[in-house]
Amino acid sequence: MGARIVIALGGNALGTNLPEQYKAVKVTAKAIVDLIEQGHEVVIAHGNGPQVGMIQNAMTELTRSDPKKYIPCPLSVCVAMSQGYIGYDLQNEIREELLDRGMDRGVATVLTQVEVDPADPAFLNPTKPIGAFMTKEEAEQLVKERDYQVIEDAGRGYRRVVASPRPISIIEIKTIQSLVENNHVVVACGGGGIPVFRTEGNHLKGAAAVIDKDFAAECLAESLNADLLIILTAVEKVAIHFGTPTQEWLSHLSPAEARRYAESGEFAPGSMLPKVQAAVKFAESRSGRKALITQLEKAGDAMKGKTGTVISI
Amino acid sequence: MGARIVIALGGNALGTNLPEQYKAVKVTAKAIVDLIEQGHEVVIAHGNGPQVGMIQNAMTELTRSDPKKYIPCPLSVCVAMSQGYIGYDLQNEIREELLDRGMDRGVATVLTQVEVDPADPAFLNPTKPIGAFMTKEEAEQLVKERDYQVIEDAGRGYRRVVASPRPISIIEIKTIQSLVENNHVVVACGGGGIPVFRTEGNHLKGAAAVIDKDFAAECLAESLNADLLIILTAVEKVAIHFGTPTQEWLSHLSPAEARRYAESGEFAPGSMLPKVQAAVKFAESRSGRKALITQLEKAGDAMKGKTGTVISI
Repeated sequence: MGARIVIALGGNALGTNLPEQYKAVKVTAKAIVDLIEQGHEVVIAHGNGPQVGMIQNAMTELTRSDPKKYIPCPLSVCVAMSQGYIGYDLQNEIREELLDRGMDRGVATVLTQVEVDPADPAFLNPTKPIGAFMTKEEAEQLVKERDYQVIEDAGRGYRRVVASPRPISIIEIKTIQSLVENNHVVVACGGGGIPVFRTEGNHLKGAAAVIDKDFAAECLAESLNADLLIILTAVEKVAIHFGTPTQEWLSHLSPAEARRYAESGEFAPGSMLPKVQAAVKFAESRSGRKALITQLEKAGDAMKGKTGTVISI
Repeated sequence: MGARIVIALGGNALGTNLPEQYKAVKVTAKAIVDLIEQGHEVVIAHGNGPQVGMIQNAMTELTRSDPKKYIPCPLSVCVAMSQGYIGYDLQNEIREELLDRGMDRGVATVLTQVEVDPADPAFLNPTKPIGAFMTKEEAEQLVKERDYQVIEDAGRGYRRVVASPRPISIIEIKTIQSLVENNHVVVACGGGGIPVFRTEGNHLKGAAAVIDKDFAAECLAESLNADLLIILTAVEKVAIHFGTPTQEWLSHLSPAEARRYAESGEFAPGSMLPKVQAAVKFAESRSGRKALITQLEKAGDAMKGKTGTVISI
């Protein structure tokens, strides 16, 4: 009996534009199907940084071309589009890889909304730049008319910034669960999920935010009662003193050690830090759960204990 | 015990831009939940004409803004994006309407690919214009570099045209079936589905085409062994001598009658004709199956036999 695994795919697993994505997902699909072939149940969450950036830029160009006809497109809608865009390529490559190995399994992309808290402190200090560079006039208009927050990027113009709040719950969790239990490989929480607030009567409202895909994957893994959270990234293992002569690769990290290293600044914010934090959260969420941080191409070896960093109590 | 119903939603159910869509889906959701409240299983297919047009235009503007960085976006990818965009609004409004009536049910958007035949005669004569108007130079470049087919629209410039082939099968049918059987309201086959060809090894390849949503809904209804196909449009009933002094609304049409009227030119191509053809195909596909063509707001009344046109043997 295999494990139930949630995989978080990073940007390097998807490429930064159409031709790159098409190539990258082929490699990604092989790594994923290796795990399925080993007998595991696999659910895939993924990032969307370059993709939602591209869509956001396209929608901005559309508004510029005819401002009377096209209002600026909400970020939540851009995330929804990016889930369709990435899910389409990803589910197809996984489907093909399964077929090529004689495995019959449904592969499905579930449009996923993820709840965030309007009181999340991240909303007080939005830091995540998204979309195209704008002129000062364009930026000022959006601040006035649409309540955007913007920053000036020295010399390159103005950009919108949004908050990156923590995920609280996954709205479509029952759908994902039902498909996993019916022998499906599910792609969900694309781009960290479409961020939404709960409003009166349990209604939902799109939030101008982006959710970190590692935290979204962690939330998904807890909600699905997964055994293992795999965070795939550009390096084989987590390191301390990274990029210095005393660099040391780690095969295992306890939550306490990880927290200590994080506090002393060993992990880069926006890069290894959120991965380690998500891994620690999952490892501590219930006895027996563990997380694995490794490189896409090494996932199979890491599952056999040959490489990667395991985070467990 | 209720019926299993596939609903085909037309453009008027979705509006033509962001604010319109947001309003329109509220009305649409009420009509859909009325049917669910009557005890029926409901699966929703929908069109995407204005939406995929908007996305296509946005992607064209993006390419224009930086042709070195962004290649033109394949139509199949634009359809995938439109499924995310429309599904997000549609599933949320249905979810809210269900909650407001105290009904607990999953609502899911399934990214759907629909198989078409490369030998479909429609590919010999593409007629469906899509995307932005182009200059002669832009059009010629795309014809040369990307094998596009274009038409000149008198005075307004050049536009790409694509084929509208018939759907053969729905790739994600098992996913949709599994969710329907697990008490879900499913949104599928958005925009008629992402059109794909089957290639060697049962792989898939995106096709430069658009599938008529009424035919896609018909294919979905047959595949799900539905009892009823409801095609929602702008009029309450099908008419003959439409728009003339002798106009006559029809409450029932047999396939033979429908075919006769169609042959004598009673139904407008690209409008009522494909709806009647899809309805006839479904009514003839198995004994006991019937189709209903009516207006969105009248769906509840039509289910009680008070209005609408029933197509059955």
